[in-house]
Amino acid sequence: MLTFQDALIRLQHFWADQGALLWQPYSEKVGAGTMNPATILRVLGPEPWNVAYVEPSYRPDDGRYAENPNRMQMHTQMQVILKPDPGDPQERYLKSLEALGIRREEHDIRFVEDNWESPALGAWGLGWEVWLDGQEITQYTYFQQAGGIALPVPAVELTYGMERIVMYLQGARSVWDIQWDARHTYGEILRDQEVDHCRYDFELADIDRLQALYDLFEQEARLALANGLAVPALDYILRCSHTFNLLDARGAVGVTERAALFKRMRDLARQTAEAYLAQREKAGFPWTARSGLTAAPLSSGALMHLPLQPAVSPAAALTAGVAPFLLEIGVEELPAAHLSDALTQLRAFVPAALDAAKLAHGAVQIWGTPRRLVVAVADVALRQADETAEVRGPAVRAAFDASGAPTRAAEGFARSRGVAVSDLRVKTFDNGDYVVAAQFTPGRPAAAVLAELLPGWIAQLRFQRAMRWNETGVAFSRPIRWLTALLGEAVVPCAYAGVESGRVTRGPRPAGSPEIALASAADYVPTLASYGVIVDPEARAAEIQRQAQAVAASVDGVIPDDPALLEEVTHLVEVPTALLGSFEKRYLTLPQDVLIAVMKKHQRYFPVLDARGRLLAYFIAVRNGGREHLDTVRQGNEDVIRARYADAEFFYKQDCRRPLEAYRDRLATLTFQADLGSMLDKARRLESFAPWVGMRLGLPSLELEVLERATFLCKADLATSMVVEMTSLHGVMGREYAKRAGESPAVAKAIFEHTLPRTAGDALPESPAGVALALADRLDSLAGLFAVGLAPTGSADPYGLRRAALGVVQLLLGRNLSLPLRDALTEAVRGLPVKATPEALQAVLDFIAGRLQGVLREAGYAYDVVEAALAARGDNPTLAREAAQQLTAWVARSDWPSLRDNYARCVRITRGQPRTTLVPERLVEPEEMALYKVLQKAEAQVPPGSDVDALLTAFVPLVPVIQAFFDKVLVMAEDASLREARLALLQRIAGLAEGIVDLSKLEGF
Amino acid sequence: MLTFQDALIRLQHFWADQGALLWQPYSEKVGAGTMNPATILRVLGPEPWNVAYVEPSYRPDDGRYAENPNRMQMHTQMQVILKPDPGDPQERYLKSLEALGIRREEHDIRFVEDNWESPALGAWGLGWEVWLDGQEITQYTYFQQAGGIALPVPAVELTYGMERIVMYLQGARSVWDIQWDARHTYGEILRDQEVDHCRYDFELADIDRLQALYDLFEQEARLALANGLAVPALDYILRCSHTFNLLDARGAVGVTERAALFKRMRDLARQTAEAYLAQREKAGFPWTARSGLTAAPLSSGALMHLPLQPAVSPAAALTAGVAPFLLEIGVEELPAAHLSDALTQLRAFVPAALDAAKLAHGAVQIWGTPRRLVVAVADVALRQADETAEVRGPAVRAAFDASGAPTRAAEGFARSRGVAVSDLRVKTFDNGDYVVAAQFTPGRPAAAVLAELLPGWIAQLRFQRAMRWNETGVAFSRPIRWLTALLGEAVVPCAYAGVESGRVTRGPRPAGSPEIALASAADYVPTLASYGVIVDPEARAAEIQRQAQAVAASVDGVIPDDPALLEEVTHLVEVPTALLGSFEKRYLTLPQDVLIAVMKKHQRYFPVLDARGRLLAYFIAVRNGGREHLDTVRQGNEDVIRARYADAEFFYKQDCRRPLEAYRDRLATLTFQADLGSMLDKARRLESFAPWVGMRLGLPSLELEVLERATFLCKADLATSMVVEMTSLHGVMGREYAKRAGESPAVAKAIFEHTLPRTAGDALPESPAGVALALADRLDSLAGLFAVGLAPTGSADPYGLRRAALGVVQLLLGRNLSLPLRDALTEAVRGLPVKATPEALQAVLDFIAGRLQGVLREAGYAYDVVEAALAARGDNPTLAREAAQQLTAWVARSDWPSLRDNYARCVRITRGQPRTTLVPERLVEPEEMALYKVLQKAEAQVPPGSDVDALLTAFVPLVPVIQAFFDKVLVMAEDASLREARLALLQRIAGLAEGIVDLSKLEGF
Repeated sequence: MLTFQDALIRLQHFWADQGALLWQPYSEKVGAGTMNPATILRVLGPEPWNVAYVEPSYRPDDGRYAENPNRMQMHTQMQVILKPDPGDPQERYLKSLEALGIRREEHDIRFVEDNWESPALGAWGLGWEVWLDGQEITQYTYFQQAGGIALPVPAVELTYGMERIVMYLQGARSVWDIQWDARHTYGEILRDQEVDHCRYDFELADIDRLQALYDLFEQEARLALANGLAVPALDYILRCSHTFNLLDARGAVGVTERAALFKRMRDLARQTAEAYLAQREKAGFPWTARSGLTAAPLSSGALMHLPLQPAVSPAAALTAGVAPFLLEIGVEELPAAHLSDALTQLRAFVPAALDAAKLAHGAVQIWGTPRRLVVAVADVALRQADETAEVRGPAVRAAFDASGAPTRAAEGFARSRGVAVSDLRVKTFDNGDYVVAAQFTPGRPAAAVLAELLPGWIAQLRFQRAMRWNETGVAFSRPIRWLTALLGEAVVPCAYAGVESGRVTRGPRPAGSPEIALASAADYVPTLASYGVIVDPEARAAEIQRQAQAVAASVDGVIPDDPALLEEVTHLVEVPTALLGSFEKRYLTLPQDVLIAVMKKHQRYFPVLDARGRLLAYFIAVRNGGREHLDTVRQGNEDVIRARYADAEFFYKQDCRRPLEAYRDRLATLTFQADLGSMLDKARRLESFAPWVGMRLGLPSLELEVLERATFLCKADLATSMVVEMTSLHGVMGREYAKRAGESPAVAKAIFEHTLPRTAGDALPESPAGVALALADRLDSLAGLFAVGLAPTGSADPYGLRRAALGVVQLLLGRNLSLPLRDALTEAVRGLPVKATPEALQAVLDFIAGRLQGVLREAGYAYDVVEAALAARGDNPTLAREAAQQLTAWVARSDWPSLRDNYARCVRITRGQPRTTLVPERLVEPEEMALYKVLQKAEAQVPPGSDVDALLTAFVPLVPVIQAFFDKVLVMAEDASLREARLALLQRIAGLAEGIVDLSKLEGF
Repeated sequence: MLTFQDALIRLQHFWADQGALLWQPYSEKVGAGTMNPATILRVLGPEPWNVAYVEPSYRPDDGRYAENPNRMQMHTQMQVILKPDPGDPQERYLKSLEALGIRREEHDIRFVEDNWESPALGAWGLGWEVWLDGQEITQYTYFQQAGGIALPVPAVELTYGMERIVMYLQGARSVWDIQWDARHTYGEILRDQEVDHCRYDFELADIDRLQALYDLFEQEARLALANGLAVPALDYILRCSHTFNLLDARGAVGVTERAALFKRMRDLARQTAEAYLAQREKAGFPWTARSGLTAAPLSSGALMHLPLQPAVSPAAALTAGVAPFLLEIGVEELPAAHLSDALTQLRAFVPAALDAAKLAHGAVQIWGTPRRLVVAVADVALRQADETAEVRGPAVRAAFDASGAPTRAAEGFARSRGVAVSDLRVKTFDNGDYVVAAQFTPGRPAAAVLAELLPGWIAQLRFQRAMRWNETGVAFSRPIRWLTALLGEAVVPCAYAGVESGRVTRGPRPAGSPEIALASAADYVPTLASYGVIVDPEARAAEIQRQAQAVAASVDGVIPDDPALLEEVTHLVEVPTALLGSFEKRYLTLPQDVLIAVMKKHQRYFPVLDARGRLLAYFIAVRNGGREHLDTVRQGNEDVIRARYADAEFFYKQDCRRPLEAYRDRLATLTFQADLGSMLDKARRLESFAPWVGMRLGLPSLELEVLERATFLCKADLATSMVVEMTSLHGVMGREYAKRAGESPAVAKAIFEHTLPRTAGDALPESPAGVALALADRLDSLAGLFAVGLAPTGSADPYGLRRAALGVVQLLLGRNLSLPLRDALTEAVRGLPVKATPEALQAVLDFIAGRLQGVLREAGYAYDVVEAALAARGDNPTLAREAAQQLTAWVARSDWPSLRDNYARCVRITRGQPRTTLVPERLVEPEEMALYKVLQKAEAQVPPGSDVDALLTAFVPLVPVIQAFFDKVLVMAEDASLREARLALLQRIAGLAEGIVDLSKLEGF
């Protein structure tokens, strides 16, 4: 049996053999090996640095009094830094697992997106958590920045969770049971000290003293930095950081402090990084040219299949006929959302790009898996079409002399165009006759054209967040490791990010990612299919759905419809195999929402429900790989969910010790936003604002009481352990804990409902109190965050304001409620701790109107109708929708053009004129007096608050009168007084629609 | 090449293979691996615990700004704990060195006494530093106590200094040059950070903040302890400890603080140990029965010689004739002083013990080496002599009836004594005639007698400090590993400390300590001699002296006579081979005293002087082992002295940056004694007391000025780095730095001289100021330490008061100075911060008189003469010696008995009589009147301050008059008035000697 200590030594050997320097755990309490100067400082600058070390890592918040199978305040990391990227870091990593006895072909090893950021250290990177049969065993990051300084050479950071790996290897059900050496278990060695640390961290550590310590540490760090001392400063920053973590575990970090402390630590970390870099720079970065890891590539994993023998493909360009084209961008595992984005982009621009390049082609297929983005085009013409263009030469009279013989000008033109003089023809243009030459451009070979195009295609892809990994400085979602580009049998030669194209693709990871040379583009799909890879995401999703349903059916269960989950799972595997796992029935006593949230958030499992929608003690995981060793994979996944549920149970029990109300004060420790204060501050704002909304919505007093109580409690669950752990359970747990605390069912329901709708298709609150609170919550967020200048920009929307605004619209429309948003926002702003400018208020209204516009357009209303409705009623979505609805009917009427035009005449002629008050006595002509009369009647029919129907119905009788008016009356009379009166009359007509609809937005107006 | 990281991994492998658990460096800054809970806590209690780990260890004070070849504020330890003692820990340790490629037969590997104590942790142990060719590479300790709690099972602690070992293996001249891995040197990795830490530690760390941190850490530790949390408390204690070290490096720990801080840390450590033990006890000490290290013994090192074949020795007891006897107590390396003590004790009691056991024997030889204590006795009778004793029975009249036939009483007696009734004889006693029986006791075989005796002999040995190492609980200087006990060819069977006696001895370490069976006791010396071991320490010393002189002569040098060094070296090796090493000439610019002190203190090298007494750039080391690989050993030793001299140079340069005077204030940070304050306090006391002494000694004013300045500066060098490092240089450096600071030569000289005499045979100060200051310094120490109750007890004399008192005597006698000590001490006491009782003052005087007595006795004065002199003049050594001198001449005179007796008559008759005043008018008889007359004359000849000669010369004329007086006069006359007058007259005669000599102490008085 490989003991815990054996495993640590083996990995050190493995990485030392690879050329890594071995280092020691740090002499300070750190939360992760990253904080050891061997990482946080030495990744800086241009020098190569390869290092491996063990790091016992302390995270007070993770303490579970040794009651969780694999979560502890101290766990042991094995930290590896590879800088620069050796080109095959994943392979080396997988080899290191093999050194521990973990063979990739026997397990489901996955690279699942997980980006890393340390706000205290000013560091971030992109990467994955590596899953071994569902269990996270390694954090794998491409380090992009440290101490606020971008890394000129990104570094690969591997962080192994050693206890979990060894648990797995030993088949232990709990970390406490693993063998540390031949004589002691891990629990025998560390359990007492774990419990002691938990007691100290959670119950005892003196908050005042910790704060005093933090300040002293910080001052010493500043002192060290003032003298340019990097490592001594870092030591104190680490002490600050650990002290901060203790304060946090004690629930003693308030909002202002949290933000301030992070900023202070980040600032110190930046100075420390600068001090370190200054030292290295002064030394001339002496290692820059030094070799990094051992260069010898590792042999790849065991092959499950022999690679196909590629047919020898002549380099000679094929230039006739058509051939299939294949581009495969081979990547390290893309995040599911990135894959989705990339597919959308490729679908959008590839066909157009081919057309623009004048390459005739058949169907364009855009496929993808986590490890490949694929463009497959049928029947690509091997050449562009030839082109003949006419080029104008000299005028005829200059081209031919009197005898009609070509002049030297004609000869020169012909020569310059490469045609015979006799081939020049005469053509008549607007300004006379000229000679023209037919200029023939032959189509270039498709291979050459594509070779030029492809790098641009890759470069064109954009991701929410991109990373660099090698010296080319290219940014992409994840590193590109190979390019397969074939036109028929020929390689399309190109290069990007240091990778050259070829005919070699790679099989899936479980097969050891074997290199496979393709004879032809046509071989691609069948070849990958032979490895079980389904490259078409739609086909893959269908297959997953089918398998999952079949597996669920085997226990008389069903899986709930969840397109988002299905899409994510589809984007996480390329060889999908669904498997059924089970968990202990006792966990079913936990709230079902909790159980499902854990499955989905942490593991991307499909829950299994019975016919009545009740959760069964099963889950469905989808592994990447075939059916081999499925029991091993199942066992691993079951262990994972067990630990997760143990954690959930721990949280649940802990939370239930106190009533929900008791958590409210701890909201002071949760930031809403720095300038807007804590969640407690927000909750307090809602306490005055939500009742206002309730009253505006006309809630009866009983409902208002419910609303009041629900508002008081609605954010409290954010401070419970469960919600801290899984934010998605906000509201769900609030309801649960409210019920347990004896709150009324109505209050509990409203607490839950105030979080609705959480997604576009989500349910809406049913209770009036829920609606009012949900509205108030969102409006407060919008008003506040816009007020402090945090309106979403570009694709960035860290506070989810698009969702909030859309929620407001959905709530109002869905419940058919009329609420003037300007009033509501004005009220919301009153409670803010900051001043909101009128511009900010308007920006919120515009922003919500923008969402409303989208909703109405999606509902099928014409663009101009929506505009017309919004321009007048954007402030009140329900009324705006009503306007759009009614207007749609009106514009469909046969008399609409006449109605519109007559109204438009009134509007157009008054545009730009000063608004004046109508003095009826000044009107002289009978037509205008008649018009005034019918106008008065219409005005009576359209009191304030009227709808479009009322307006237009009242307007119909005016049409002939308006016509008559314009026929007989000269509006712009010379007599100013008369002119003014007539304009005022027309302004009154135009004004009929004010606040109801802006007909000027309509087409043809 | 074995890189630094390879070496760490190899040792981990080695110890893991031995069954040790592998652990990680600690997450706090520690000064040593000992402070890791894996040692300081887990050695506690009865459970087995075997662990190995790396520990980067931080000692701010050792920082040298990366300018020293092997001394740094951070160094890397490999820490190993073996508990319980596996029985062969040294062999396992040597094997571990072999795993690194260090073969014992190619090097000089030595175990040199080094006891370890951590006042902060309440921990101590005895052991060695292990030398590899002169370089300390490992600290090897038998842990006896931790956290103030004795270990029921002592633990072996090995602490490897990894940088030094790897330097050695790589042949690097500096730690900064060693290869960390194949690509980087140690310096490349750590030099910058070392310099930064030095800057922070020595120059920047903010003292006020450190003190605040210390307090906060301590409070948190107390909080954790109040809740029984061991490890969290330890964390804070370690932070306290590191903070203390930083404060110390900043020179900010005053006397009171130092003592207080240590006590506080020790107190916390004790509570932590108790908390940990309570946890283990609560768990029932679950590992108690668990196996420890792998039991399989390691094969011993390579044999240089085959062991002798032992002749088969019959177990049958030889009972006639004589045979040589051998007892060898095989031990792990004894400290030199312990070896010396043990030899003295054995020499004292073995012959007597043999005699008491009635074993006839020839010459008794007591030998020893660091690894063996040997008793070799020639011609031991194989049997005790038979004995016949008479036993008295009943009285004759009860033993025989009237007919002379034996009664039943006689029969009973004969039977009880095992003799025939006819064998009873009659013997006359004081109180009558009795029957007696001759009781024959046959001598027992010597082997049986010795078997009973030997354990007692071993148990009888006493050491200054003893240790336990195994479950027997036996205490000895160092572990006993074998017992060889032979009488002729037969084993004397016995056992001690778990070891059974046998015929097997072991060869020396360089030969791999081969086990050698001895055929006979007579084989012992030649067998060991064949391995080069010289068991007789005198022979060994002579051989070392011879070799060292020969080696010195090879470079035209000589070695100064230094018996203490020669004895120590003799006690450190058993196979001595002297070798010549050299060092860089540039170091000769450092003060010679420094260079020699470094050699002797740290390395026990002999310095080599030229004919004029100037140091040459050589040293002589004495290795343990033969001439093989001598160049390797030389190279190693040269590297060591180079690093030592680099350190000395560092200190010297650092000290010279400021004038001597500038160090005076830092004396506040050095404790003299807790109640007596700092060295600065002592220096201040001397500033008033030394001038007083100078004036009493009649120094001229110019000398008094020198004295004043010298007094001001005399202790300042104690605060310099050089003297902090080597206390023996106190005074030497003071002189040196005073000269460099421009003090007058006289002041510099007095500063040095005030430390004289440092040893019994040392020189005395030449300058009057030096003498006065030396006296004042010693008298202050004596007065102060006696005042606070720290008079030496038994053999303990931690403050060196015996030396101080002897120094006072030597100074006064050597310079022939008359100083009344009572006056001087009374004056000294006035300056103390504590009150001294009259008893304490008297105790000091008695204590000094005790030294004086020894000096005078050694000078050859008769015991009684010395007593007579001391009784009257113990207060003034010079006068006492004068008295002894003169008295010696008087007692040699032929008329001495008459003189003495007549004086004695006067004294004796007045003893016990009340002292009365003589009223001459009351005298009536002519003889008494005559006596009064001559007395008056004599009194005039003996004024106060007279010496013995004056006294006795004046007394001679009284002799006949006294005789006549006693012949004629009845002293005890009935008339009280007359009686009183006569007694008063005689009292006046007796009183003549008062304050001059106490003749009553003489023999025959």
